[in-house]
Amino acid sequence: MGGERAVRAKSGTGEHVERHFLNSQTVRDVVIGMADGLTVPFALAAGVTAAVASTRLVVTAGLAEIVAGSIAMGLGGYLAAKSDHEHFQSEERREYAEVEKLPEQERRELREILADYGLRGREADSVVAAISADKKRWVDFMMRFELGLEKPDPKRAPVSAATIAAAYFVGGLIPLAPYMLGGDVRDALVHSTIVTGVALLSFGAVKGKLTGADPLKSGAQTFLVGGLAAGAAYWLASFFG
Amino acid sequence: MGGERAVRAKSGTGEHVERHFLNSQTVRDVVIGMADGLTVPFALAAGVTAAVASTRLVVTAGLAEIVAGSIAMGLGGYLAAKSDHEHFQSEERREYAEVEKLPEQERRELREILADYGLRGREADSVVAAISADKKRWVDFMMRFELGLEKPDPKRAPVSAATIAAAYFVGGLIPLAPYMLGGDVRDALVHSTIVTGVALLSFGAVKGKLTGADPLKSGAQTFLVGGLAAGAAYWLASFFG
Repeated sequence: MGGERAVRAKSGTGEHVERHFLNSQTVRDVVIGMADGLTVPFALAAGVTAAVASTRLVVTAGLAEIVAGSIAMGLGGYLAAKSDHEHFQSEERREYAEVEKLPEQERRELREILADYGLRGREADSVVAAISADKKRWVDFMMRFELGLEKPDPKRAPVSAATIAAAYFVGGLIPLAPYMLGGDVRDALVHSTIVTGVALLSFGAVKGKLTGADPLKSGAQTFLVGGLAAGAAYWLASFFG
Repeated sequence: MGGERAVRAKSGTGEHVERHFLNSQTVRDVVIGMADGLTVPFALAAGVTAAVASTRLVVTAGLAEIVAGSIAMGLGGYLAAKSDHEHFQSEERREYAEVEKLPEQERRELREILADYGLRGREADSVVAAISADKKRWVDFMMRFELGLEKPDPKRAPVSAATIAAAYFVGGLIPLAPYMLGGDVRDALVHSTIVTGVALLSFGAVKGKLTGADPLKSGAQTFLVGGLAAGAAYWLASFFG
Protein backbone atom coordinates (compact mmCIF):
# COMPACT_ATOMS: atom_id res chain seq x y z
CA MET A 1 0.00 0.00 0.00
CA GLY A 2 2.93 2.26 -0.12
CA GLY A 3 3.97 4.10 2.96
CA GLU A 4 7.14 4.60 0.94
CA ARG A 5 5.22 6.18 -1.81
CA ALA A 6 3.96 9.39 -0.30
CA VAL A 7 7.42 10.25 0.80
CA ARG A 8 9.57 9.16 -2.05
CA ALA A 9 7.59 11.66 -4.04
CA LYS A 10 9.07 14.31 -1.77
CA SER A 11 12.76 13.56 -1.88
CA GLY A 12 15.32 12.52 -4.40
CA THR A 13 16.73 9.88 -2.12
CA GLY A 14 15.37 7.03 -4.19
CA GLU A 15 17.71 8.00 -7.00
CA HIS A 16 20.70 7.91 -4.75
CA VAL A 17 19.91 4.56 -3.20
CA GLU A 18 19.35 3.28 -6.71
CA ARG A 19 22.86 4.22 -7.74
CA HIS A 20 24.46 2.69 -4.71
CA PHE A 21 22.70 -0.64 -5.09
CA LEU A 22 22.25 -0.85 -8.80
CA ASN A 23 23.25 -4.49 -8.89
CA SER A 24 20.87 -5.44 -6.12
CA GLN A 25 18.02 -3.28 -7.36
CA THR A 26 15.74 -6.18 -8.23
CA VAL A 27 16.27 -7.59 -4.75
CA ARG A 28 15.43 -4.18 -3.35
CA ASP A 29 12.24 -3.89 -5.43
CA VAL A 30 11.15 -7.37 -4.33
CA VAL A 31 11.73 -6.58 -0.67
CA ILE A 32 9.93 -3.21 -0.85
CA GLY A 33 6.97 -4.76 -2.67
CA MET A 34 6.74 -7.64 -0.19
CA ALA A 35 7.04 -5.47 2.90
CA ASP A 36 4.22 -3.28 1.56
CA GLY A 37 2.21 -6.25 0.26
CA LEU A 38 2.14 -7.86 3.68
CA THR A 39 0.51 -4.86 5.34
CA VAL A 40 -2.87 -4.17 3.76
CA PRO A 41 -3.92 -7.73 2.84
CA PHE A 42 -3.07 -8.75 6.42
CA ALA A 43 -5.10 -5.89 7.86
CA LEU A 44 -7.99 -6.53 5.48
CA ALA A 45 -8.10 -10.24 6.34
CA ALA A 46 -8.07 -9.39 10.06
CA GLY A 47 -10.88 -6.89 9.54
CA VAL A 48 -13.07 -9.29 7.58
CA THR A 49 -12.46 -11.96 10.22
CA ALA A 50 -13.86 -9.61 12.84
CA ALA A 51 -17.11 -9.36 10.88
CA VAL A 52 -17.72 -12.79 9.38
CA ALA A 53 -17.01 -16.36 10.38
CA SER A 54 -16.04 -17.65 6.95
CA THR A 55 -12.46 -18.36 5.93
CA ARG A 56 -13.55 -18.66 2.30
CA LEU A 57 -14.84 -15.10 2.38
CA VAL A 58 -11.67 -13.78 3.95
CA VAL A 59 -9.67 -15.50 1.21
CA THR A 60 -11.92 -14.08 -1.52
CA ALA A 61 -11.72 -10.51 -0.20
CA GLY A 62 -7.97 -10.90 0.36
CA LEU A 63 -7.33 -12.14 -3.17
CA ALA A 64 -9.47 -9.35 -4.61
CA GLU A 65 -7.37 -6.82 -2.69
CA ILE A 66 -4.08 -8.37 -3.76
CA VAL A 67 -4.93 -8.51 -7.45
CA ALA A 68 -6.42 -5.00 -7.46
CA GLY A 69 -3.47 -3.62 -5.51
CA SER A 70 -0.92 -5.26 -7.79
CA ILE A 71 -2.60 -3.94 -10.94
CA ALA A 72 -2.95 -0.45 -9.50
CA MET A 73 0.70 -0.50 -8.49
CA GLY A 74 2.10 -2.17 -11.61
CA LEU A 75 0.06 -0.57 -14.38
CA GLY A 76 -0.34 2.72 -12.54
CA GLY A 77 3.39 2.74 -11.89
CA TYR A 78 4.19 2.02 -15.51
CA LEU A 79 1.95 4.84 -16.74
CA ALA A 80 3.30 7.29 -14.18
CA ALA A 81 6.86 6.41 -15.27
CA LYS A 82 5.90 7.06 -18.85
CA SER A 83 4.44 10.46 -18.07
CA ASP A 84 7.43 11.40 -15.89
CA HIS A 85 9.66 10.59 -18.85
CA GLU A 86 7.48 12.64 -21.19
CA HIS A 87 7.51 15.51 -18.71
CA PHE A 88 11.30 15.43 -18.61
CA GLN A 89 11.50 15.40 -22.41
CA SER A 90 9.09 18.31 -22.81
CA GLU A 91 11.00 20.39 -20.22
CA GLU A 92 14.23 19.50 -22.00
CA ARG A 93 12.82 20.63 -25.33
CA ARG A 94 11.69 23.89 -23.74
CA GLU A 95 15.13 24.41 -22.24
CA TYR A 96 16.81 23.81 -25.63
CA ALA A 97 14.45 26.34 -27.19
CA GLU A 98 15.20 28.91 -24.47
CA VAL A 99 18.95 28.43 -24.84
CA GLU A 100 18.50 28.92 -28.57
CA LYS A 101 16.15 31.91 -28.53
CA LEU A 102 16.90 33.69 -25.25
CA PRO A 103 20.59 32.93 -24.64
CA GLU A 104 21.15 36.15 -22.68
CA GLN A 105 18.33 35.41 -20.27
CA GLU A 106 19.58 31.83 -19.79
CA ARG A 107 23.12 33.14 -19.18
CA ARG A 108 21.69 35.43 -16.52
CA GLU A 109 19.94 32.47 -14.89
CA LEU A 110 23.17 30.50 -15.08
CA ARG A 111 25.03 33.36 -13.36
CA GLU A 112 22.45 33.43 -10.59
CA ILE A 113 22.91 29.72 -9.95
CA LEU A 114 26.69 30.14 -9.89
CA ALA A 115 26.40 33.06 -7.48
CA ASP A 116 24.72 30.68 -5.00
CA TYR A 117 27.95 28.67 -5.02
CA GLY A 118 30.12 31.74 -4.48
CA LEU A 119 31.13 32.31 -8.10
CA ARG A 120 31.01 35.97 -9.16
CA GLY A 121 32.75 38.43 -11.43
CA ARG A 122 35.39 37.11 -13.83
CA GLU A 123 35.31 33.60 -12.39
CA ALA A 124 31.62 33.41 -13.13
CA ASP A 125 32.21 34.81 -16.63
CA SER A 126 34.63 32.06 -17.52
CA VAL A 127 32.36 29.34 -16.13
CA VAL A 128 29.38 30.74 -18.03
CA ALA A 129 31.48 30.78 -21.20
CA ALA A 130 32.66 27.17 -20.68
CA ILE A 131 29.22 25.75 -19.93
CA SER A 132 27.37 27.69 -22.60
CA ALA A 133 29.95 26.70 -25.26
CA ASP A 134 28.19 23.36 -25.61
CA LYS A 135 24.39 23.37 -25.86
CA LYS A 136 23.86 19.85 -24.58
CA ARG A 137 26.04 20.54 -21.55
CA TRP A 138 24.29 23.84 -20.95
CA VAL A 139 20.82 22.27 -21.08
CA ASP A 140 22.00 19.38 -18.84
CA PHE A 141 23.22 21.91 -16.30
CA MET A 142 20.01 23.94 -16.36
CA MET A 143 17.82 20.83 -16.13
CA ARG A 144 19.63 19.73 -13.02
CA PHE A 145 20.16 23.10 -11.35
CA GLU A 146 17.39 25.35 -12.45
CA LEU A 147 14.67 22.71 -12.56
CA GLY A 148 16.07 20.08 -10.21
CA LEU A 149 15.23 17.32 -12.68
CA GLU A 150 17.23 14.14 -13.14
CA LYS A 151 16.81 12.19 -16.34
CA PRO A 152 14.51 9.22 -15.61
CA ASP A 153 15.61 5.88 -17.00
CA PRO A 154 12.76 4.89 -19.34
CA LYS A 155 13.74 1.23 -19.31
CA ARG A 156 14.29 0.73 -15.62
CA ALA A 157 11.11 2.25 -14.15
CA PRO A 158 8.56 -0.11 -15.77
CA VAL A 159 10.62 -3.19 -14.89
CA SER A 160 10.92 -1.89 -11.36
CA ALA A 161 7.18 -1.14 -11.10
CA ALA A 162 6.35 -4.65 -12.37
CA THR A 163 8.78 -6.24 -9.92
CA ILE A 164 7.33 -4.32 -6.99
CA ALA A 165 3.79 -5.25 -8.09
CA ALA A 166 4.65 -8.95 -8.40
CA ALA A 167 6.33 -8.88 -4.99
CA TYR A 168 3.26 -7.14 -3.56
CA PHE A 169 1.14 -10.01 -4.90
CA VAL A 170 3.39 -12.71 -3.44
CA GLY A 171 3.80 -10.78 -0.18
CA GLY A 172 0.02 -10.54 0.11
CA LEU A 173 -0.30 -14.33 -0.07
CA ILE A 174 1.69 -14.72 3.17
CA PRO A 175 -1.04 -13.37 5.53
CA LEU A 176 -3.70 -15.18 3.48
CA ALA A 177 -2.01 -18.61 3.54
CA PRO A 178 -3.36 -19.64 6.98
CA TYR A 179 -6.93 -18.81 5.83
CA MET A 180 -6.38 -20.77 2.61
CA LEU A 181 -5.60 -23.88 4.63
CA GLY A 182 -9.18 -23.72 5.90
CA GLY A 183 -10.32 -24.55 9.41
CA ASP A 184 -11.63 -22.15 12.01
CA VAL A 185 -11.41 -18.48 11.00
CA ARG A 186 -10.25 -17.36 14.49
CA ASP A 187 -7.42 -19.91 14.47
CA ALA A 188 -6.46 -18.74 11.00
CA LEU A 189 -6.33 -15.13 12.28
CA VAL A 190 -3.95 -16.15 15.07
CA HIS A 191 -1.71 -18.07 12.67
CA SER A 192 -1.85 -15.25 10.14
CA THR A 193 -0.83 -12.74 12.82
CA ILE A 194 2.17 -14.84 13.87
CA VAL A 195 3.36 -15.59 10.33
CA THR A 196 2.84 -12.01 9.15
CA GLY A 197 4.44 -10.52 12.27
CA VAL A 198 7.61 -12.51 11.65
CA ALA A 199 7.52 -11.62 7.94
CA LEU A 200 6.98 -7.89 8.61
CA LEU A 201 9.93 -7.82 11.00
CA SER A 202 12.15 -9.72 8.55
CA PHE A 203 11.28 -7.82 5.37
CA GLY A 204 11.36 -4.53 7.24
CA ALA A 205 14.87 -5.32 8.47
CA VAL A 206 16.08 -6.37 5.01
CA LYS A 207 14.46 -3.27 3.52
CA GLY A 208 16.32 -1.11 6.04
CA LYS A 209 19.60 -2.83 5.23
CA LEU A 210 19.11 -2.29 1.48
CA THR A 211 18.03 1.33 1.74
CA GLY A 212 20.73 2.34 4.22
CA ALA A 213 18.52 2.61 7.33
CA ASP A 214 19.06 0.80 10.62
CA PRO A 215 17.69 -2.76 10.03
CA LEU A 216 16.41 -3.17 13.59
CA LYS A 217 14.58 0.13 13.50
CA SER A 218 13.21 -0.48 10.01
CA GLY A 219 11.98 -3.94 11.00
CA ALA A 220 10.26 -2.56 14.09
CA GLN A 221 8.65 0.26 12.09
CA THR A 222 7.31 -2.06 9.36
CA PHE A 223 5.92 -4.30 12.10
CA LEU A 224 4.32 -1.34 13.86
CA VAL A 225 2.61 0.00 10.72
CA GLY A 226 1.24 -3.46 9.86
CA GLY A 227 0.06 -4.02 13.43
CA LEU A 228 -1.69 -0.66 13.73
CA ALA A 229 -3.34 -1.00 10.31
CA ALA A 230 -4.62 -4.48 11.19
CA GLY A 231 -5.75 -3.36 14.63
CA ALA A 232 -7.70 -0.41 13.23
CA ALA A 233 -9.27 -2.52 10.48
CA TYR A 234 -10.28 -5.17 13.01
CA TRP A 235 -11.76 -2.60 15.38
CA LEU A 236 -13.68 -0.77 12.63
CA ALA A 237 -14.98 -4.01 11.13
CA SER A 238 -16.21 -5.41 14.46
CA PHE A 239 -18.06 -2.14 14.97
CA PHE A 240 -19.77 -2.24 11.56
CA GLY A 241 -19.84 -5.99 10.95
CA MET B 1 -2.59 2.08 -3.57
CA GLY B 2 0.04 4.05 -5.22
CA GLY B 3 0.66 3.52 -8.87
CA GLU B 4 2.51 6.79 -8.52
CA ARG B 5 4.59 5.35 -5.79
CA ALA B 6 6.73 2.80 -7.59
CA VAL B 7 7.72 5.40 -10.09
CA ARG B 8 8.20 8.52 -8.05
CA ALA B 9 10.82 6.53 -6.23
CA LYS B 10 12.70 6.42 -9.54
CA SER B 11 12.70 10.04 -10.57
CA GLY B 12 13.17 13.38 -8.97
CA THR B 13 10.17 14.87 -10.71
CA GLY B 14 8.18 15.14 -7.50
CA GLU B 15 10.56 17.79 -6.23
CA HIS B 16 10.18 19.84 -9.32
CA VAL B 17 6.42 19.72 -9.39
CA GLU B 18 6.51 20.64 -5.75
CA ARG B 19 8.39 23.82 -6.49
CA HIS B 20 6.17 24.83 -9.37
CA PHE B 21 2.97 24.30 -7.44
CA LEU B 22 4.06 25.05 -3.93
CA ASN B 23 0.97 27.08 -3.18
CA SER B 24 -1.34 24.39 -4.51
CA GLN B 25 0.51 21.50 -2.95
CA THR B 26 -2.22 20.59 -0.53
CA VAL B 27 -4.69 20.51 -3.42
CA ARG B 28 -2.28 18.28 -5.30
CA ASP B 29 -1.87 15.89 -2.35
CA VAL B 30 -5.62 15.68 -1.95
CA VAL B 31 -6.16 14.91 -5.62
CA ILE B 32 -3.39 12.30 -5.75
CA GLY B 33 -4.70 10.61 -2.60
CA MET B 34 -8.26 10.61 -3.89
CA ALA B 35 -7.39 9.31 -7.34
CA ASP B 36 -5.46 6.45 -5.72
CA GLY B 37 -8.06 5.93 -3.00
CA LEU B 38 -10.82 5.43 -5.53
CA THR B 39 -9.02 2.55 -7.25
CA VAL B 40 -8.47 -0.29 -4.78
CA PRO B 41 -11.57 0.13 -2.57
CA PHE B 42 -13.66 0.22 -5.77
CA ALA B 43 -11.99 -2.94 -7.10
CA LEU B 44 -12.26 -4.68 -3.74
CA ALA B 45 -15.96 -3.87 -3.42
CA ALA B 46 -16.57 -5.17 -6.95
CA GLY B 47 -14.66 -8.35 -6.15
CA VAL B 48 -16.54 -9.03 -2.92
CA THR B 49 -19.83 -8.37 -4.74
CA ALA B 50 -18.93 -11.14 -7.19
CA ALA B 51 -18.63 -13.60 -4.31
CA VAL B 52 -21.31 -12.65 -1.80
CA ALA B 53 -24.79 -11.19 -1.92
CA SER B 54 -24.49 -8.93 1.11
CA THR B 55 -24.04 -5.18 0.89
CA ARG B 56 -23.16 -5.06 4.58
CA LEU B 57 -20.23 -7.37 3.99
CA VAL B 58 -19.00 -5.32 1.04
CA VAL B 59 -19.12 -2.19 3.21
CA THR B 60 -17.28 -3.93 6.06
CA ALA B 61 -14.50 -5.23 3.81
CA GLY B 62 -14.31 -1.87 2.04
CA LEU B 63 -14.01 0.11 5.27
CA ALA B 64 -11.35 -2.31 6.54
CA GLU B 65 -9.36 -1.72 3.36
CA ILE B 66 -9.72 2.04 3.52
CA VAL B 67 -8.66 2.37 7.13
CA ALA B 68 -5.76 -0.09 6.70
CA GLY B 69 -4.63 1.61 3.51
CA SER B 70 -4.79 5.08 5.03
CA ILE B 71 -2.77 4.05 8.07
CA ALA B 72 -0.18 2.22 5.96
CA MET B 73 0.10 5.28 3.73
CA GLY B 74 0.05 7.93 6.43
CA LEU B 75 2.11 6.36 9.19
CA GLY B 76 4.35 4.47 6.77
CA GLY B 77 4.87 7.68 4.82
CA TYR B 78 5.70 9.64 7.94
CA LEU B 79 8.28 7.07 9.05
CA ALA B 80 9.82 6.83 5.58
CA ALA B 81 10.12 10.64 5.48
CA LYS B 82 11.85 10.58 8.82
CA SER B 83 14.38 7.98 7.71
CA ASP B 84 14.98 9.84 4.43
CA HIS B 85 15.77 12.92 6.47
CA GLU B 86 18.10 10.96 8.76
CA HIS B 87 19.80 9.44 5.74
CA PHE B 88 20.42 12.90 4.29
CA GLN B 89 21.81 14.15 7.59
CA SER B 90 24.18 11.20 7.99
CA GLU B 91 25.48 11.60 4.42
CA GLU B 92 25.91 15.32 5.07
CA ARG B 93 27.90 14.64 8.24
CA ARG B 94 30.11 12.21 6.31
CA GLU B 95 30.66 14.78 3.59
CA TYR B 96 31.64 17.44 6.16
CA ALA B 97 34.11 14.97 7.68
CA GLU B 98 35.60 14.17 4.27
CA VAL B 99 35.97 17.84 3.37
CA GLU B 100 37.70 18.31 6.72
CA LYS B 101 39.99 15.28 6.67
CA LEU B 102 40.56 14.55 2.98
CA PRO B 103 40.31 17.98 1.32
CA GLU B 104 42.63 16.99 -1.54
CA GLN B 105 40.56 13.96 -2.45
CA GLU B 106 37.36 16.02 -2.29
CA ARG B 107 38.97 18.69 -4.50
CA ARG B 108 39.82 15.98 -7.03
CA GLU B 109 36.19 14.78 -7.00
CA LEU B 110 35.05 18.37 -7.42
CA ARG B 111 37.38 18.76 -10.43
CA GLU B 112 35.96 15.58 -11.99
CA ILE B 113 32.42 16.91 -11.66
CA LEU B 114 33.44 20.24 -13.19
CA ALA B 115 35.19 18.43 -16.06
CA ASP B 116 31.82 16.87 -16.98
CA TYR B 117 30.55 20.41 -17.55
CA GLY B 118 33.53 21.37 -19.70
CA LEU B 119 35.56 23.16 -17.03
CA ARG B 120 39.27 22.31 -17.07
CA GLY B 121 42.69 23.83 -16.34
CA ARG B 122 42.80 27.30 -14.82
CA GLU B 123 39.05 27.84 -15.09
CA ALA B 124 38.48 24.72 -13.01
CA ASP B 125 41.14 25.85 -10.53
CA SER B 126 39.38 29.11 -9.85
CA VAL B 127 35.99 27.42 -9.49
CA VAL B 128 37.42 24.83 -7.12
CA ALA B 129 39.00 27.62 -5.09
CA ALA B 130 35.73 29.59 -4.95
CA ILE B 131 33.54 26.64 -3.96
CA SER B 132 35.98 25.13 -1.45
CA ALA B 133 36.52 28.50 0.23
CA ASP B 134 33.26 27.97 2.14
CA LYS B 135 32.70 24.58 3.74
CA LYS B 136 28.92 24.76 3.78
CA ARG B 137 28.83 25.72 0.11
CA TRP B 138 31.31 22.97 -0.73
CA VAL B 139 29.29 20.29 1.08
CA ASP B 140 26.06 21.57 -0.50
CA PHE B 141 27.65 21.25 -3.93
CA MET B 142 28.96 17.72 -3.28
CA MET B 143 25.62 16.56 -1.82
CA ARG B 144 23.83 17.68 -4.90
CA PHE B 145 26.39 16.72 -7.55
CA GLU B 146 28.33 13.80 -6.21
CA LEU B 147 25.47 12.12 -4.36
CA GLY B 148 22.48 13.51 -6.24
CA LEU B 149 20.70 14.28 -2.96
CA GLU B 150 18.35 17.18 -2.37
CA LYS B 151 17.67 18.27 1.18
CA PRO B 152 14.28 16.85 2.20
CA ASP B 153 11.95 19.24 3.96
CA PRO B 154 11.36 17.58 7.35
CA LYS B 155 8.23 19.62 8.00
CA ARG B 156 6.51 19.23 4.66
CA ALA B 157 6.74 15.46 4.12
CA PRO B 158 4.69 14.30 7.14
CA VAL B 159 1.97 16.90 6.45
CA SER B 160 1.88 15.76 2.86
CA ALA B 161 1.75 12.07 3.79
CA ALA B 162 -1.13 12.75 6.20
CA THR B 163 -3.00 14.78 3.59
CA ILE B 164 -2.63 12.03 0.98
CA ALA B 165 -3.75 9.41 3.54
CA ALA B 166 -6.83 11.44 4.53
CA ALA B 167 -7.69 11.98 0.87
CA TYR B 168 -7.26 8.26 0.26
CA PHE B 169 -9.77 7.62 3.03
CA VAL B 170 -12.33 10.08 1.65
CA GLY B 171 -11.70 8.92 -1.93
CA GLY B 172 -12.33 5.34 -0.85
CA LEU B 173 -15.76 6.30 0.51
CA ILE B 174 -16.93 7.29 -2.99
CA PRO B 175 -17.11 3.74 -4.41
CA LEU B 176 -18.52 2.47 -1.11
CA ALA B 177 -21.31 5.04 -0.82
CA PRO B 178 -23.80 3.17 -3.07
CA TYR B 179 -23.32 0.01 -0.96
CA MET B 180 -23.78 2.02 2.23
CA LEU B 181 -27.20 3.15 1.02
CA GLY B 182 -28.20 -0.53 1.19
CA GLY B 183 -30.50 -2.31 -1.22
CA ASP B 184 -29.55 -4.98 -3.75
CA VAL B 185 -25.81 -5.62 -3.97
CA ARG B 186 -25.86 -5.89 -7.79
CA ASP B 187 -27.62 -2.54 -8.11
CA ALA B 188 -25.07 -1.06 -5.74
CA LEU B 189 -22.26 -2.42 -7.93
CA VAL B 190 -23.76 -0.73 -11.00
CA HIS B 191 -24.17 2.58 -9.17
CA SER B 192 -20.68 2.29 -7.67
CA THR B 193 -19.22 1.68 -11.13
CA ILE B 194 -20.92 4.77 -12.59
CA VAL B 195 -20.05 7.08 -9.68
CA THR B 196 -16.47 5.81 -9.46
CA GLY B 197 -15.98 5.91 -13.23
CA VAL B 198 -16.92 9.59 -13.31
CA ALA B 199 -14.76 10.28 -10.24
CA LEU B 200 -11.72 8.43 -11.70
CA LEU B 201 -11.98 10.42 -14.93
CA SER B 202 -12.35 13.72 -13.05
CA PHE B 203 -9.62 13.22 -10.47
CA GLY B 204 -7.31 11.73 -13.08
CA ALA B 205 -7.80 14.82 -15.24
CA VAL B 206 -7.21 17.23 -12.34
CA LYS B 207 -4.17 15.20 -11.29
CA GLY B 208 -2.81 15.50 -14.83
CA LYS B 209 -3.41 19.24 -14.82
CA LEU B 210 -1.63 19.70 -11.49
CA THR B 211 1.34 17.50 -12.35
CA GLY B 212 1.88 18.92 -15.82
CA ALA B 213 0.51 15.98 -17.83
CA ASP B 214 -2.26 16.10 -20.42
CA PRO B 215 -5.52 16.14 -18.38
CA LEU B 216 -7.47 14.10 -20.95
CA LYS B 217 -4.81 11.42 -21.13
CA SER B 218 -4.31 11.37 -17.36
CA GLY B 219 -8.07 11.05 -16.81
CA ALA B 220 -8.30 8.18 -19.28
CA GLN B 221 -5.33 6.40 -17.70
CA THR B 222 -6.66 6.70 -14.14
CA PHE B 223 -9.99 5.37 -15.41
CA LEU B 224 -8.26 2.49 -17.20
CA VAL B 225 -6.22 1.42 -14.17
CA GLY B 226 -9.31 1.49 -11.93
CA GLY B 227 -11.35 -0.42 -14.49
CA LEU B 228 -8.77 -3.13 -15.03
CA ALA B 229 -8.13 -3.54 -11.30
CA ALA B 230 -11.87 -3.89 -10.63
CA GLY B 231 -12.34 -6.24 -13.57
CA ALA B 232 -9.53 -8.52 -12.43
CA ALA B 233 -10.72 -8.51 -8.81
CA TYR B 234 -14.28 -9.31 -9.92
CA TRP B 235 -13.10 -12.11 -12.18
CA LEU B 236 -10.81 -13.66 -9.56
CA ALA B 237 -13.45 -13.42 -6.83
CA SER B 238 -16.19 -15.01 -8.92
CA PHE B 239 -13.78 -17.86 -9.59
CA PHE B 240 -12.97 -18.41 -5.91
CA GLY B 241 -16.14 -17.19 -4.28
